[in-house]
Amino acid sequence: MSQYPKSPLMGQMMSQPLLISNIIQFADRYFGDAEIVSRRVEGDVHRYTYRDCHRRARRLANALASLGVQMGDRVATLAWNGYRHLELYYAISGSGAVMHTINPRLHPDQVAYIANHAEDQYLFFDMTFLPLVERFARQCKTVKGFVMMCDRDGMPQETSVPNLMCYEDLIDQNSDEYAWPQFDENSASSLCYTSGTTGNPKGALYSHRSTLLHSLASVMPDALNVSARDAVLPVVPMFHVNAWGLPYSAPMVGAKLVFPGPALDGKSLYELFEQERVTFSAGVPTVWLGLLNYVEQHKLKFSTFRRTVIGGAACPPAMMSKFRHEYDVEVVHAWGMTEMSPLGTTCTLQNRHLDLPEEQKQAVLEKQGHAIFGVDMKIVDDNGKELPWDGETYGNLLVRGPWIIERYFKGEGGDVLQDGWFPTGDVATISPHGYMQITDRSKDVIKSGGEWIGSIDLENIAMAHPAVQQAACIGVFHPKWDERPLLVVVRKPGVDISREELIRHYDGKIAKWWTPDDVAFVEALPIGATGKILKNRIREQFKGYKLPTA
Amino acid sequence: MSQYPKSPLMGQMMSQPLLISNIIQFADRYFGDAEIVSRRVEGDVHRYTYRDCHRRARRLANALASLGVQMGDRVATLAWNGYRHLELYYAISGSGAVMHTINPRLHPDQVAYIANHAEDQYLFFDMTFLPLVERFARQCKTVKGFVMMCDRDGMPQETSVPNLMCYEDLIDQNSDEYAWPQFDENSASSLCYTSGTTGNPKGALYSHRSTLLHSLASVMPDALNVSARDAVLPVVPMFHVNAWGLPYSAPMVGAKLVFPGPALDGKSLYELFEQERVTFSAGVPTVWLGLLNYVEQHKLKFSTFRRTVIGGAACPPAMMSKFRHEYDVEVVHAWGMTEMSPLGTTCTLQNRHLDLPEEQKQAVLEKQGHAIFGVDMKIVDDNGKELPWDGETYGNLLVRGPWIIERYFKGEGGDVLQDGWFPTGDVATISPHGYMQITDRSKDVIKSGGEWIGSIDLENIAMAHPAVQQAACIGVFHPKWDERPLLVVVRKPGVDISREELIRHYDGKIAKWWTPDDVAFVEALPIGATGKILKNRIREQFKGYKLPTA
Repeated sequence: MSQYPKSPLMGQMMSQPLLISNIIQFADRYFGDAEIVSRRVEGDVHRYTYRDCHRRARRLANALASLGVQMGDRVATLAWNGYRHLELYYAISGSGAVMHTINPRLHPDQVAYIANHAEDQYLFFDMTFLPLVERFARQCKTVKGFVMMCDRDGMPQETSVPNLMCYEDLIDQNSDEYAWPQFDENSASSLCYTSGTTGNPKGALYSHRSTLLHSLASVMPDALNVSARDAVLPVVPMFHVNAWGLPYSAPMVGAKLVFPGPALDGKSLYELFEQERVTFSAGVPTVWLGLLNYVEQHKLKFSTFRRTVIGGAACPPAMMSKFRHEYDVEVVHAWGMTEMSPLGTTCTLQNRHLDLPEEQKQAVLEKQGHAIFGVDMKIVDDNGKELPWDGETYGNLLVRGPWIIERYFKGEGGDVLQDGWFPTGDVATISPHGYMQITDRSKDVIKSGGEWIGSIDLENIAMAHPAVQQAACIGVFHPKWDERPLLVVVRKPGVDISREELIRHYDGKIAKWWTPDDVAFVEALPIGATGKILKNRIREQFKGYKLPTA
Repeated sequence: MSQYPKSPLMGQMMSQPLLISNIIQFADRYFGDAEIVSRRVEGDVHRYTYRDCHRRARRLANALASLGVQMGDRVATLAWNGYRHLELYYAISGSGAVMHTINPRLHPDQVAYIANHAEDQYLFFDMTFLPLVERFARQCKTVKGFVMMCDRDGMPQETSVPNLMCYEDLIDQNSDEYAWPQFDENSASSLCYTSGTTGNPKGALYSHRSTLLHSLASVMPDALNVSARDAVLPVVPMFHVNAWGLPYSAPMVGAKLVFPGPALDGKSLYELFEQERVTFSAGVPTVWLGLLNYVEQHKLKFSTFRRTVIGGAACPPAMMSKFRHEYDVEVVHAWGMTEMSPLGTTCTLQNRHLDLPEEQKQAVLEKQGHAIFGVDMKIVDDNGKELPWDGETYGNLLVRGPWIIERYFKGEGGDVLQDGWFPTGDVATISPHGYMQITDRSKDVIKSGGEWIGSIDLENIAMAHPAVQQAACIGVFHPKWDERPLLVVVRKPGVDISREELIRHYDGKIAKWWTPDDVAFVEALPIGATGKILKNRIREQFKGYKLPTA
């Protein structure tokens, strides 16, 4: 912050840097007995406390030092949500090194590209990823050693992975006497690559300061609203934008933490929710689809689950309504990006809305919401001119704030800011009361006769039809209009519906000329490494598709 | 933060200082239509919005510049909780000057002392304080002008106050075109003097950073838990530790704000709570006593009031229980000090407590609670040796954190820290789960035969008796034990109770030797400028008192 002028009179408050190690120390001292429960890749359920986690993180910090890891060095992980991954979050960042989470759903070549680009010094991985690591380990140029996150019994007899170490050995061989170093809060803490759909992945390099400010803002009542009474199950992976900050925010408030490991199917999640009395969860819509389908099919109810934050992709209003009205689970719609740590907006009601009828409340809650304190937004046209907040005008969404990147790691992509604002690549409206609604990714907008059609609206209408499991809408070539919408649909198992019925379903719900020109039924939609539908893949698949209207 | 070493790899996040002006800009953009309602000293009720407040704060910032106020200059206020006071909070600090709130309940000589010590350049005051200002204005050596917070019609025909200006004239004469300056976040933002019971008042000089971090931490679900759905009525005055940060935290979350002005009696408060549908309030126990008495006498209920934070003095368990069980109002016990911005701890339950029987929950909630993230605590003996967290061992309470002072303004009192920790002057226990309980102010502890008796416990037992309105317990001289407890009691109107009955009331509730040796009935207890009972005044009053046991 040194570039800003100082006042002739400075405050006389204690000077303490905002560091990630503060969080685990605080959790140990004030919520030391709060539980961390993990369904492990080994198959069993592991339980311990924040105090235990802190003790093992200190041992691990000593282990990292003994391996020669220096301040600023990158240390990578390929791991599910679990207690060992949490220990690494604190040991690596807390000791001044950089926690680099890699998405194991990427292609091995991409993993190797990322590890080389980041110049990772060590790579820790869950035992399920041994085959993956064997495929790319020899391509890694900077990695001095690999650590498998298991005990001695879990180690392979033979492997092609060079210099393979055992996680529990490292823990056992090191003391828990460790004083977390104090350093400048703008030091790098963690690194996460965007799984960009085009070009090479680019890294967002977070700082201790940005992480702590994001955590503080994210637990506010109008954001995640997490307290010491919650049992928090992060479905969103710790390898994807730090599980939306929950590995930091849950200990910060002393919440019980429940880690699902790799089992993210409806049945496994439901059982864990019930066994561990989970009250709060967070994830992308595709995961909730699986959970809701399971609960519906087996006519179950949630006993303790009360609130979920849904983001990563727009939550279909039908899903939100089902959670709210059939299962009494409050849904908070959220929006963010890897480049934003990730939280930018959450959608909650204001005092002014309390007396509105239920449908009007629901209509507000379907938007992506208002900025969290710290974030600012604006919408601009293609020339950068600011557009009005009238809830109708579409524009490119720009953001700024202390947990938003200034540039990508190593300057990839060059100067990305526009006049100090980060361009999100989303197209949105903002209401007069500051509620933002994503209408599309700028590259997914369907451009028909010079006008824009938002694909998300079309998908939401389709998703509200009882026969539709999943839907994606893309623009395909039309000789007269340039592009016209094609709806691509996965039907619910055992349910039939025709093209004509689905097109009729749009009557009266949308401007006539927005109605899709055609429907294509498919078995499944391509899902990316972060759980989002890959529209560019669908567009490739339907390249050259001939519309009946063409 | 520059004294901390930098990592070889710094984060690549946007660099933005944490400034108080961020808050009002955010409130304007995202909660611009949320209401601010003020009962004015003029007698009427004033309503406007955050957007209006921001516009007038910008005019006022221009006014300050035109008066020659520079960055770092102190500008004082003597004002109740109201919208003009809020405008000053943002205009003064936001423009880089220092908001200096003075407690108008102090003696005029003390006000003058503080204004001179702070070297205030201007002093803004509510019209009710004109007689007070007339008494001390000529003693102020640095004040260039006084501004009365009213419109032209409210200005006096004649006054002895030199260079008296009219607030609304300043607003009218200036433009709302104003860009909030960006500067180092450690710059001083505001100044508040402790109304020390001994010696001269000493100033706590807050920074923008400390204020923003305190605000972020204070709205967490386990702290004040304030959201955009709340209507917040700060009873705690804006002239006393910034009304526990509510003038910052309420706009930060977009809550409706309701200001009571000077009318803090039970009837006025109750009517405002009902008219404005207040959901949340915060104040000291003595104010709640008045409110509860009024509500009880008139057999009323609260329609919207759901949660209150009580601090400033220990909340008698009987009051807490009445709020919780008779009025369905959640009470959060809080503890802090002027030197701590002020919040240090709040008392809320953890996941582990949810299945406890009601009495055990209540017992937890009667403590002062766990540290808010950012604050750390310890208890030490008189030699500075750390004492165990067993819930029984008493010790001097020490704290540290980024919103706790490092020293007093101008170095008054010398080096106050002990090894980097601020000594609070409180005596406390801390439970194994991190719950702190104040047992006494170190100077109020009753020292009987070398052992300590906590006066707060004795007072709480007395307060639980239906005939007792207020109680204070002090140590008075005893020839054998050095000190023995004397209970000083104000009876409820029209209720009689004898000394013997009250002493019997302690049977079985406490160690026999802790029982007060005598009871003195008085008409009223002396209350200080911040609403606390002044025990040193009571001790003076009973100096030389002869106990029947002596």
